[in-house]
Amino acid sequence: MPRVAIDVLLKRELLDPQGRATERALPDLGFDGVRDVRIGKHLELEVDAEGEDLAARVEAMCAGFLTNPVVEAYRWRVIAEDERADAAA
Amino acid sequence: MPRVAIDVLLKRELLDPQGRATERALPDLGFDGVRDVRIGKHLELEVDAEGEDLAARVEAMCAGFLTNPVVEAYRWRVIAEDERADAAA
Repeated sequence: MPRVAIDVLLKRELLDPQGRATERALPDLGFDGVRDVRIGKHLELEVDAEGEDLAARVEAMCAGFLTNPVVEAYRWRVIAEDERADAAA
Repeated sequence: MPRVAIDVLLKRELLDPQGRATERALPDLGFDGVRDVRIGKHLELEVDAEGEDLAARVEAMCAGFLTNPVVEAYRWRVIAEDERADAAA
């Protein structure tokens, strides 16, 4: 079954307070030169579908349940096992 | 300045209650055949660095501030402007 990664952020025209707070804290921690920090959700899941059926189901889940399309934007992709964010290092 | 996307999940051997709850809710919403749901953080930021310097700075930020290496795993990549999760549709 293909594994899908979904990234969700607040729409770009909206203030992201968590990102802004992180951006302001970084210089005090010794990390300069970091800009435009946005923080949202990352989801990974396996879906029992392929091709256009997979795309239709992922889009329906994202639009109907996993994200709030009024204020959030998302992007998804199929990932390989070694591209999991929790793949063993 | 390169834009970096960072995905953070709980380590695979740890229970992810948010992912589990989402997985259980999906069939009632009409979405069958979805398994192994994991939910974490997605960050995007611009870093004023390139090559090995960029990698070293992103790794230092992830390990020292943006994630909790005790319980979380992460993966990062450089993304193009049109790969932003909040790119205009």
